[in-house]
Amino acid sequence: MRTNVISFITDFGTRDNFVGVMKGVILTINPEAALVDITHEITPHCVSEASFLLERSYRFLPPGSVHVVIVDPGVGGSRRPIAVRADKHFFVCPDNGLLTHVLAGVSEFEARLLENKDFLLVKISNSFHGRDMFAPVAAYISKGVPFEKFGPRIADPVMLPLDRPFTKQDCLIGTVVYIDHYGNLVTNIREQELSGFLQGSAGLVQILKHQIPRVTSSYSATPVGEPLAIIGGFGMLEIAVNCGNAQQVLGASLNSEVVVSRSTDATA
Amino acid sequence: MRTNVISFITDFGTRDNFVGVMKGVILTINPEAALVDITHEITPHCVSEASFLLERSYRFLPPGSVHVVIVDPGVGGSRRPIAVRADKHFFVCPDNGLLTHVLAGVSEFEARLLENKDFLLVKISNSFHGRDMFAPVAAYISKGVPFEKFGPRIADPVMLPLDRPFTKQDCLIGTVVYIDHYGNLVTNIREQELSGFLQGSAGLVQILKHQIPRVTSSYSATPVGEPLAIIGGFGMLEIAVNCGNAQQVLGASLNSEVVVSRSTDATA
Amino acid sequence: MRTNVISFITDFGTRDNFVGVMKGVILTINPEAALVDITHEITPHCVSEASFLLERSYRFLPPGSVHVVIVDPGVGGSRRPIAVRADKHFFVCPDNGLLTHVLAGVSEFEARLLENKDFLLVKISNSFHGRDMFAPVAAYISKGVPFEKFGPRIADPVMLPLDRPFTKQDCLIGTVVYIDHYGNLVTNIREQELSGFLQGSAGLVQILKHQIPRVTSSYSATPVGEPLAIIGGFGMLEIAVNCGNAQQVLGASLNSEVVVSRSTDATA
Repeated sequence: MRTNVISFITDFGTRDNFVGVMKGVILTINPEAALVDITHEITPHCVSEASFLLERSYRFLPPGSVHVVIVDPGVGGSRRPIAVRADKHFFVCPDNGLLTHVLAGVSEFEARLLENKDFLLVKISNSFHGRDMFAPVAAYISKGVPFEKFGPRIADPVMLPLDRPFTKQDCLIGTVVYIDHYGNLVTNIREQELSGFLQGSAGLVQILKHQIPRVTSSYSATPVGEPLAIIGGFGMLEIAVNCGNAQQVLGASLNSEVVVSRSTDATA
Repeated sequence: MRTNVISFITDFGTRDNFVGVMKGVILTINPEAALVDITHEITPHCVSEASFLLERSYRFLPPGSVHVVIVDPGVGGSRRPIAVRADKHFFVCPDNGLLTHVLAGVSEFEARLLENKDFLLVKISNSFHGRDMFAPVAAYISKGVPFEKFGPRIADPVMLPLDRPFTKQDCLIGTVVYIDHYGNLVTNIREQELSGFLQGSAGLVQILKHQIPRVTSSYSATPVGEPLAIIGGFGMLEIAVNCGNAQQVLGASLNSEVVVSRSTDATA
Repeated sequence: MRTNVISFITDFGTRDNFVGVMKGVILTINPEAALVDITHEITPHCVSEASFLLERSYRFLPPGSVHVVIVDPGVGGSRRPIAVRADKHFFVCPDNGLLTHVLAGVSEFEARLLENKDFLLVKISNSFHGRDMFAPVAAYISKGVPFEKFGPRIADPVMLPLDRPFTKQDCLIGTVVYIDHYGNLVTNIREQELSGFLQGSAGLVQILKHQIPRVTSSYSATPVGEPLAIIGGFGMLEIAVNCGNAQQVLGASLNSEVVVSRSTDATA
């Protein structure tokens, strides 16, 4: 399937000209590209955050989309520039673990080293490969250049350790892996993992000193200002405060532990 | 008239992936859509702010545009998802008052309850109707699906009380309803209301303890650092400081009272 | 060459509706326009910052692009609205020095005063020429309206003084002219100027009390947390800290002096 969609996840921010310059390079090569910003506000140099957001996002874009993912503290060093085809999508990025969450969820992929200079800018800087390599490669992929042309196949893109929930003494133990701009605390416990663990019983959720007596089905079913647990927009168990900021109200942070135990509403 | 323009006003921010995911859903359904961000920085959960900005914005987009407006603290609860056609534009939003300012300014409208599942994502979450309902409906409207197909007509979209200026003892009394990022204090007094009240005389404008002797016609006609009153870019009476931040300089805030009285330049 | 690309550099921010409204005006006139945000986060009223970023950006967009550049504290006053054609690109802006860096780098240009009301909105406010003049003119240029139709030629667009590096006692002396969102300190010393000065010797770089013993070729070649000097993504000499914020670590600011002297790695 062909599409013209190219998406972006970076830590470039929107104050400088980095994003606009990349888009200019892309539109010079493929004037038909449709450009979608997912975010440019990844915490600077935080590869794991970008990897998480990418995996939670890409399926909502059309099959055939090209996702440019750049958090690149090693730019100009020895880390490899790569492009990967997986799950009918394309990913273009430095090879530093940015695809960890995506690749952990697919059974097969094709990774290529970006060696073919026909698809890079003529002058490659040591400091801005987003403009000089990743943007032009994304543009050429979106134009339909055969994937094998970009460079030789590689078998071993960098994978970071994945922080997965586990069970211990009848509890499902996860951690906060992302905090959204409302202050909602997104855990690494997926909807299916939670329902598989609870098997129909209500879930008692504990975070720091706070106990939440059940997993609810809407933010507004809980009184304003009270904490609640819900499967949120990320498809993960999330701790929120109705019309409030859970991070501030609960004093939680990234990596805070979240413990789910089985209970019934009666005992909660 | 047909157009492919879809605009967005939300409180989603741009740090998370919410906006990008909605755009991905739209481009999957209508690859020709032209996407325009009006703002994603509505104060979280502040329906009235979004309603104000929407009414001050939509007429500048092409007739036939679809405006996706999402500030949705009641998501997953009983509030209705709706689409409205009014003044040759379409609006898609939760029914919580977001269209108050728009509907107060039109003589007729057609509102529909979003019941037809043909135009929603297959899986509807309880936490992200922007992705699961509003984005796909906007995409299908922009593709030209007949409006009556989205669901049954409803007569009573939620309207919030509107804060309108009033006259008292020969004064026109308004309030600050919006503060822009320069710190300009935007009141609820429209250009026509002001000129109708002043009838050619100069306007003496008072806010907190500050008196501004006239309504000026440009920011730069006042010395740098001094407060001024002007019909600003919103088409409303606005209190500004030339090359400065009126909110900080004057110590004003949302809902600060603004009193206009008739004077002549001679007496001011 | 024809392109539909229109780019934006403004101090409008993204919280208000100013940018979205300008885009709506443009898409009403030219539904085929491809809109690229370079930045809307210029420091409010800071013309020189916008001028610098524009010159460092526009060449990466397709020839024929129209660049809308608005930092406009004099809106509604006597400053002229202009459009300029230079280096195969178009620029639309208030005539207050925004094109200083671009025009300093070209041998010829054609500037026009925006007098022809056929290409402006019917109602021109005194406070938002971005919407009423610059957006529609950009849209009509992108549609291919002959450039001479927009108004009479003018010879003297406003030029601001340019802060250029100079040599003194065997040193190349520059200043910090831009600080990016990573905290990298971008100087006014261009790649060619630096290499012309160093003529193959290593460069000893001094900023405030800090000495950096060489100009390196990648951020990651320096230990994490250490300062480094590099030709950065702007194509200028830049002081950075590997995986850190140079502005904070070094206590530097805009206009901090940067002194480069010739040395050898051996003596450094």
